[in-house]
Order: sequence, then C-alpha cells, then structure tokens
Amino acid sequence: MREIEEATIKVVVGAEKRSHKVTENDKKITAYHEAGHAIVTYFLPNQDPVYQVSIIPRGMAGGYTMSMPQDDKMYISKSNMCDKIVVLLGGRAAETIIFGDISTGASNDIERATEISRNMVTKYGMSEALGPVTFGSGHEEIFLGKDYGSVRNYSEKVAAEIDVEVNKFILSAYEKSKQILEKNIEKLKHVAEYLIENEKIDGEKFVELMA
Amino acid sequence: MREIEEATIKVVVGAEKRSHKVTENDKKITAYHEAGHAIVTYFLPNQDPVYQVSIIPRGMAGGYTMSMPQDDKMYISKSNMCDKIVVLLGGRAAETIIFGDISTGASNDIERATEISRNMVTKYGMSEALGPVTFGSGHEEIFLGKDYGSVRNYSEKVAAEIDVEVNKFILSAYEKSKQILEKNIEKLKHVAEYLIENEKIDGEKFVELMA
Amino acid sequence: MREIEEATIKVVVGAEKRSHKVTENDKKITAYHEAGHAIVTYFLPNQDPVYQVSIIPRGMAGGYTMSMPQDDKMYISKSNMCDKIVVLLGGRAAETIIFGDISTGASNDIERATEISRNMVTKYGMSEALGPVTFGSGHEEIFLGKDYGSVRNYSEKVAAEIDVEVNKFILSAYEKSKQILEKNIEKLKHVAEYLIENEKIDGEKFVELMA
Amino acid sequence: MREIEEATIKVVVGAEKRSHKVTENDKKITAYHEAGHAIVTYFLPNQDPVYQVSIIPRGMAGGYTMSMPQDDKMYISKSNMCDKIVVLLGGRAAETIIFGDISTGASNDIERATEISRNMVTKYGMSEALGPVTFGSGHEEIFLGKDYGSVRNYSEKVAAEIDVEVNKFILSAYEKSKQILEKNIEKLKHVAEYLIENEKIDGEKFVELMA
Amino acid sequence: MREIEEATIKVVVGAEKRSHKVTENDKKITAYHEAGHAIVTYFLPNQDPVYQVSIIPRGMAGGYTMSMPQDDKMYISKSNMCDKIVVLLGGRAAETIIFGDISTGASNDIERATEISRNMVTKYGMSEALGPVTFGSGHEEIFLGKDYGSVRNYSEKVAAEIDVEVNKFILSAYEKSKQILEKNIEKLKHVAEYLIENEKIDGEKFVELMA
Amino acid sequence: MREIEEATIKVVVGAEKRSHKVTENDKKITAYHEAGHAIVTYFLPNQDPVYQVSIIPRGMAGGYTMSMPQDDKMYISKSNMCDKIVVLLGGRAAETIIFGDISTGASNDIERATEISRNMVTKYGMSEALGPVTFGSGHEEIFLGKDYGSVRNYSEKVAAEIDVEVNKFILSAYEKSKQILEKNIEKLKHVAEYLIENEKIDGEKFVELMA
Repeated sequence: MREIEEATIKVVVGAEKRSHKVTENDKKITAYHEAGHAIVTYFLPNQDPVYQVSIIPRGMAGGYTMSMPQDDKMYISKSNMCDKIVVLLGGRAAETIIFGDISTGASNDIERATEISRNMVTKYGMSEALGPVTFGSGHEEIFLGKDYGSVRNYSEKVAAEIDVEVNKFILSAYEKSKQILEKNIEKLKHVAEYLIENEKIDGEKFVELMA
Repeated sequence: MREIEEATIKVVVGAEKRSHKVTENDKKITAYHEAGHAIVTYFLPNQDPVYQVSIIPRGMAGGYTMSMPQDDKMYISKSNMCDKIVVLLGGRAAETIIFGDISTGASNDIERATEISRNMVTKYGMSEALGPVTFGSGHEEIFLGKDYGSVRNYSEKVAAEIDVEVNKFILSAYEKSKQILEKNIEKLKHVAEYLIENEKIDGEKFVELMA
Repeated sequence: MREIEEATIKVVVGAEKRSHKVTENDKKITAYHEAGHAIVTYFLPNQDPVYQVSIIPRGMAGGYTMSMPQDDKMYISKSNMCDKIVVLLGGRAAETIIFGDISTGASNDIERATEISRNMVTKYGMSEALGPVTFGSGHEEIFLGKDYGSVRNYSEKVAAEIDVEVNKFILSAYEKSKQILEKNIEKLKHVAEYLIENEKIDGEKFVELMA
Repeated sequence: MREIEEATIKVVVGAEKRSHKVTENDKKITAYHEAGHAIVTYFLPNQDPVYQVSIIPRGMAGGYTMSMPQDDKMYISKSNMCDKIVVLLGGRAAETIIFGDISTGASNDIERATEISRNMVTKYGMSEALGPVTFGSGHEEIFLGKDYGSVRNYSEKVAAEIDVEVNKFILSAYEKSKQILEKNIEKLKHVAEYLIENEKIDGEKFVELMA
Repeated sequence: MREIEEATIKVVVGAEKRSHKVTENDKKITAYHEAGHAIVTYFLPNQDPVYQVSIIPRGMAGGYTMSMPQDDKMYISKSNMCDKIVVLLGGRAAETIIFGDISTGASNDIERATEISRNMVTKYGMSEALGPVTFGSGHEEIFLGKDYGSVRNYSEKVAAEIDVEVNKFILSAYEKSKQILEKNIEKLKHVAEYLIENEKIDGEKFVELMA
Repeated sequence: MREIEEATIKVVVGAEKRSHKVTENDKKITAYHEAGHAIVTYFLPNQDPVYQVSIIPRGMAGGYTMSMPQDDKMYISKSNMCDKIVVLLGGRAAETIIFGDISTGASNDIERATEISRNMVTKYGMSEALGPVTFGSGHEEIFLGKDYGSVRNYSEKVAAEIDVEVNKFILSAYEKSKQILEKNIEKLKHVAEYLIENEKIDGEKFVELMA
C-alpha cells in the first residue's frame, strides 16, 4: 500500500465510546462491530477502500474503521449516500447476527445514518415520493443551532411523509447490511477473530483476509 | 464477601424521599419497596448482585438498594437495559402486591425507568418497530437544557409511535417485576420483615435470606 | 382536644377570596362551602380530622377548613390522593346541592384538585391506563417556571389520554363528594347554619354537631 | 336616586372608540348600541341597575352604559356571569336588529364577553361538559403576559372541547340578548331616540322611559 | 371638485412597487391594475369616491388609486369592510381578465385584503359561522410584535374554521370584483388607455370617463 | 452580441459548490448539469436568453449558467415564475436523464425553486386552490430571521394545502424540464461535450450549437 498522509484520511466509521479498562466481552463486541463496518465497506464498490481497522481504545473511541478517499469528490450521488448508510449500520448488523442482542455501541453510527437519510430527503430532494423540494431552511440554524431544530415551514402531513421516507432509506440500508454480513458470516468471524488477537488490521492485510 | 471500596458501588436503586421522623406505616412501605428492588435484582442474571439494602433514612432518601458492578462495562446491551427497568419497577410492584395500593415513593424510580425506555427507543434505535434511527438530536440540549425538551424534528405520527414503544418496554418490565415477586412472595415478606427489624442487610446476609 | 401548635396544622382547605364587607348572601355561600369541605372530610377515614372551620374573612380568604395531620407521613398513597380531591371539591358540591348554582369561590379548590390529579397521572404513574410512566420532566421547570408549562416530550395522542385520566380522577371524586353531601344533607345544613350564627367551629364542636 | 360616589361605580359597559367629530350616522349607531346594553341590563334581574347612559364621546370612548353595583359581592355566580355576557352583547344585538349590519364598535364588548366565557370554562370549572377542572395555569402569566397566552398543558382534543364550550356560552347569551331586544324593540327605539336628542340618560330617567 | 387638503386623503389603494425605468409592458399592467381598483370603487356605493389615479412611479409605488373619505367615520360596518376587500382585489381581477396571467404587482393588495378579512373574523366577530367571539388577544403583541403572531389560545379545529371564514370573505369579494369589471370591460379599457396616454386622472375626469 | 455590462447580468442559474481539484467524473456531471439549465432556458420564450455557461470552478461554484435580462421588469408574471422553476430544475433533470443517478449538486437549485414556488402560493396568492390570500406575514421576520420561520397564523389544514400547491408547481416544472431535455437529448449531449472540451460557452456560440 502506498504512502498515505493522515490528512487525506477523512472517513472514520464507528469510533465507539470506550473507557480505559476493557472487558473480554466488550473487546469481542467491538471486534465484531468494527469487522461489520469493514466487511460491508468491502462489498460496496461505491465506497472508498478500508484503510485501517482497530479495536484499541483511543479517547472516547472503543475502536474504529477508516476508509481512504480515492479522489477529491465535488458531488455525492444518491447511490453513494445510500451505501454510506449501509456501512454505518454494518456495526449494529454484525452485533445482531452474532450475539442476537444489540448494544449502545452503535448510537453514534445510527445518529449519523439518520442525519444522512434526513438530508437526502429534506435538503437534496432525493426522495422519489417528495420530489426535488427542500423542507426547512438553513437560515434558521443561527437561532436553534442545528438544521434539525429549525422552525418547521411545512405541515404535519408532510412531516409524516418525510419520516416515512427517512425511515425507508434507513431500513433498506439495514437490510442490505445484514444481507451482506449473513452471506459473508465466515469472513466476518475471520476478521473479528483476527482483530481480537491482533487489535489492528491495515488495508492490505484486510484485503488478504477477505480473499 | 470480599472487600469493596465505596467508589466501586455505582448503582443505587430506589433511594426514596424521607423526612426525619418515620411512622410505622412508612417504615413498612419502605421495607417492602426496597425488598422488591432487591429480590427482582436477585432473579435477573443480567444484573449486578445486591450489595446492600437499607431502610434507614439518609438525607432525602427513605431507603436504598445498592448493587455492585462486577466489571467496568463499555457497552450496555438491550436486554440489560430492559432488566434494569424491571429492577427499577420492583419497588412499586411490591407495594401493589402487598398493600393493594401504591404510593408516591416510586416517583423517582418510574422517572428513571421512563428515561431508560425513551433512550432505548430514540437514542439507541433499539425498538423493533422504529428501527435503527435516532429521533431528536443532542445538539439542542444547550437551548432547552435537556434531551427531552429538544425541538422535535419528527412528526406527530412518529411521536405517537415512540410513545407506544416506550410504553411497551415499561409495561412488559412491570409485568416481569410483578411475576418475579408474586412467585417469590414468601421471600419478599421474609426480606421485608428482616428489614423492619434490622433496618439494613448486606449482600452476604441477603443471599443467605434468599436461600 | 389536646394542645396543638399552629405549626403542626398544615392542611387548610378552601380558603376563599374575600373583601372586607360581607353580604348576607356571601356569608351563606361561604358557610355552605366550608361546611361542604368539613363534612366530606369527616366521612373519609383516609383524611386527617377537621380541626377548625371558619367563615370569618382573613386577608384574601373568605373562610377556611383546617384539618390536623395525625402524623408526619413520608409517602402519600393513591387512595389518599383520590380522597384529598374529594375533600377539595366538597365546597363546590355543597354549592350545587344547596343553591343549584355555582360560584367563582371554588376556583382555588379546583385548581388544586386538578394539580393533584395531573400529578397522579404524569408524575406518580398512578393511572391504570397509562401505567408506571412519567410524562414531561422536572428539568424544564427552570425555563418555563412550572411543571405544567414544560416542553412536551410526548405525542398528542398521549396528551389526550392524560387528559382523559386526569378528568376521570376529578369526576369520580366530584361524584363521591356530592354523594356524601346528599346523603348527609341535614348535617350539611346543621353545620352551615351553626357557622352562619357562630362564624367558627372547632374540631370538638364539629364532631359533636355531626353526632 | 341616592348619592353615589364615583368610586362605587365599577361596571362600565360598551365604552366604544370614538374620534372628536361625530357624524350623524355614527351618533345613531352609538345611541342604538348603548340603548341595547341598557335595555338588556334592565331585563336581567341578576344585573345591577343602569346608573347612566351616554353617547357623548370621551377619550377613546364613543359612549358608555354604567350600572351601579348594589353591594360588594365576594363571589360571582355562574348565572350572573352568563347574564353579564348577555349585557355585553346587547350593543351588537341592537345594531343587527336595527341596521341589519354590524360594526367594529362592538369589538371591545365581544373581547370581554369571550374572556368571561373562557374563564368560566378554564378557570372556574363552570362548563358541564368539562367539569370542575382548570386548564392552563396562572403561573405562566409572567412569561407570556396573559392567561390566554400561557403554555398549553392539555391536548388538542380538550382544546377543541374548550372552544365548543366557550362558544356555547357566547351564542346562547347572544340569542338571549337578541330575544330581549326584539321583544322590546319599541323601548329600544324610544331610549335610542331620547339619547340622540339628549346625549345622556341617568338611572331614574331610564327607569321612567322603560315604564 | 371642492378644495381638499392632502391630509384628508387617507385611503391609497394599490401603490405598487416600481423601479425607475418603466417598460411598455409594465406600464400597461399598471394602467389596467389601477383602472381595476378605480372602476370597482366607482360601482360600490359604500366606498368613498375616487380622487386620483396615477401610473407615474413614485418611490416604491408603480401607481396608485386614491379615494376621498367623505366624512370622519367612527365605526366601520361589515358591509363596508367587505367592499373594501372588493376594491383591493380589483387590480388583480383586472390583470386576470385582460392578460389571462397574474403578476406580483398585487401582493400588497392581497396582503391587506387578507388582514381585513382576518380581522373581521377574529377581532370583530363578523363571521356568521363563528359568531361574536374574539380569537387571540391583543395582549401578546408586545412579545411577538404583531396580532398574527400572537400565541394561539384556540384549537386547531377553530383555526381551520377561521381559515375557511377568512377565505370565504376573500373569494366572494374576488368574484364580485371580477363581475363588476367583466360587466364594465369597455370602461376598464377606456380608463386604462387614458392612463397609458396621460399617466394621471383626477376625480372629476374619472367620473366623466365613466359616464 | 452587443456590449453588455456585467452589472446588467442579474440571473445566474446553477452556480454549484466545487473544491479546487476537479475529477473527470465531477467535470462531466457539472457539464451536463449546466447544459441542462442552458437548454431548458433556450426553449422557454418567457426566459431571458443564455449569456454564458461555464464549468470552470470559481469560489464555491463548480459551474454556472447566466442569462441576460432583456429589460428592467417591474412585475413578474405567474407564467414567468413557473418557467424560472423549470430552468432551475434543468440541472437535476439532466443528471437523471444522463446518469440515472442524482447528486448533491442540485441542492441550491431546488432550494431556490422551492422558495419561488412557496412565495407564489403564500405571498403572491397565485395558487388557484387557495386564491388571492397571503399566508404568514412579513412582520415576524425580525424575530425569526426569515419568512419561512415566521409564526404560523393559519391552521394545519391550510398548511397541508399550501404544501400540496407548492409541490404541484415544483413537480409540473420538473416534468416540463425533463420533457424538454428528453426531446432534445442530442443537443444536451452536444452542449455538454463542448463544455467538457472548452469549459465555457458564450451566448452566440450557444445559439450556434443549438441550431
């Protein structure tokens, strides 16, 4: 793998909250969670390749999966955004499949997935049901601090339609995420076990493990 | 029971409001209320073991049930959160079963139970009906002081669905709590009577009483 | 009746607004209103005994009915709170029964009755329909000055359910209040007439009149 | 008529907005408007007798109808409040009956009538449909300056029920007002014509005109 | 026409936005727009006579139609307010009839028409469906700067009824406006052509043109 | 083409966000996006002629399409506003037709299209369903910073009707935009390819390419 400056690495998926001492159980959860992100990324041609996966706690993060942007894109396409949500939900999908239980570890991932999905619908007019229309306006941000909290300029009926559309993108991404991981459950276990033992994988090793 | 530092004891369930002079009736209510928390905790393998139960008023608290965290967990699983609600509602469940009446003593317990249940649905995406989506955003906290009061970024329809899901977690936990206590009503009376007489039980004695 | 310090008397029901000069009609209304509170209190074993009834205007109050707390309770039970509402609505119930008209004199009573009923439902989880859940949170109080005005964290549907439950407690209490007074209408007249003549009754005399 | 101090006269009904120069048409409207208030008052035994009627503009007021409180009441009964609304709507009722058109002159009257009706329902629990419950709370007044603007602590469903009840009191009062005036249309014309000629009527003269 | 001081001229209808250089097309639109206002005014006996019509841009205004108040009215009747809306919508009505297209030129007219209609319903109780009731209160104006923005003290159901009533007044006025102009389309063309040529008409000339 | 001062060029459509280094893919997207704006403009007689198209990134803009106002219009007609929306959606329409995917590049276009459509409905009374009425008022702008965020003075029902009307204008414009481009897909490719090669087209060259 060629030289990469830290600055060019922009996408970090699934940096989970973590305190200093790590239990065996938490280590296992983190390993499967991060492996989930990494494997989903691998199978989505739209997404930048995995650059590094780690389950060594660093600050608030219990682990992370980095991908490496190939070039400096100006626009993001709808299909790219959809796949980004699939990647973000890969951690929770892995937890469900492996443990049959889910944890608070995915809270940041699903918050970001929700934000992307909502922006697709309300800011980029990418929902087919609602069409090329924006809802809410960036101008109120100053007053309420955040796009989400802007004063609503549409009806309850449209608000419900927006919720339906936002949910659709999320749920179909979650399904895709689970399908990829179920189909590649052996690879998921392989990567997770490698992580539990080695705590870190770089991009080349990851590609090797996936082969 | 091995040495435990005060600092490692983090979970205190059911510290009830109490003024200085305690009537016989209030003492009885507190004893059954705290015994309820303790016994429910005992029968949930997911929960940390009971460390101490007391009905000696201390500050605002009329009594308390402490459990002892076994290790320093990084993530909390959905099933663990569900059981935590079962424990929190153990006090009220005991009151209903024993006295056929309920009191204001459980107000803090149900407030915490509601908060956990709401977070499961809106922050951790743990409701099956709503899926891995977040509702509301932490960013408004600055303006309205609390997650709960954040400006709503979803429709009335979703708000109603959230309420249904929050209620489901609470009600099924309350049922579980009552079932455990009804099945172990003799143990409940035994522990409560011991508390009325001795005002305090430590973890070892509690295990002994439960045997 | 044994010595009682002013400080131990905590419950004053039905202190009505009143200006200095009192018309005969107002005096009669006050007498029946306060007698209503007192007689309802008498027939509810859950409530503390009547300590004093007065129709002498004092400050803003046109009259009052005091009861004497027997001991220093820590918890208030649901049945106790229900009966407190019955007592609070005793004044208005008496007006309706005797005059076939109602007055502004009960506004403070019904405000307090509504507050108790609302707290039972939203703060103490005492409504069977809604279960052991809290609605709204004390944390916003700082911003809007009052529990009632807190930013709503639940749906319109739940808001309507809360209203139904609050109303149920009030209406069933009002019915109970009217039943007690209709069944004891001669006692009501007797106490009211005594009050019109003597302006004040102490607890012992009141028990005597009720016999 | 015995001596009356200005200070004892508290109720002024229908002080209408008016600029300095008065057209014949406006004078006629004011005369019938004030005569409407006065005659409705006369036929409601619940209301204090008319003390003075004037159509001489004074400040913002185009005319007024004063009544004289008989004594210093402490409570206001529901039936009294209902009749006060009848009086307040007497001006508009007279305009409709005489001119077949209505004017902006009644805006202050209907604002006060609405306020009384709303208070009956939300503050004094006088609506049979909603019962002895208060809605909204006086505590928010500080923040929004007015009972009306207080943060709502009830559901849309109850808000709609309140609106229905408020409207009922108003509409039944308006009907009563029109009935009284239609039945006494000759008296209405008589008083209005007298006012147009003399601009002022005192209580004794008014009683004489009504005979 | 007798001497008129500028100060007595209070009603200016249809002062449209305009920049310095005027295209032929804009001049034509303004001429028909103002002629629309003037002719509708002429056929409504309730309205003050036209005093001057101009299509010379002045400040922000592209043209204007002034009428001359006959006397200093104290009250405005419901029928007068309805006709004022008819006049305000005369400009847009003329555009529709003549060009089959409408423009932004009427935005100020329809804003004022909406405000009058809304005040009729919510402030003057002039809607038959809603009756003599006021909605919202002037007291909040201080906080939100405008009657419109006042905190709502009524239900969604009533809000929808208000909207229906406000719309009814507007639509029936718009119909009346179009009927008058369609019936007098030759006069409309006559006045508009005169305006295009002369840019200004005074009241006497206008009456002459209408004959 | 005659001399044109920069100052007279007021309409710039589709200035897209762009960072310094441009990928081949982004360049292609921009070229088709801008060509879409330009060609739609060309086929709408209502719109000012195209003056310049560029895909050279400048500041935040990845490209732009300028048209040249023919004269200084005072009013904008409804049909003109509708066509302006068609032009604004030409970029996204081109992306859909050519790539079968859409991008974030149109977010500013659809925000402006939504704003025009909303103003047509709420400010200029140009929706046939809602009629010549304004909704919301400019007066609140001071408090919430933007027309959109103004306190609502209409019902949910009307809010939903407004949303329907706003959407109608947008969707019919988007259809028109796609129809024009599908019918002229060869011209679209021709202009886009020319742009990819030359990065800039002036008005005369554009007309030549379209021939």
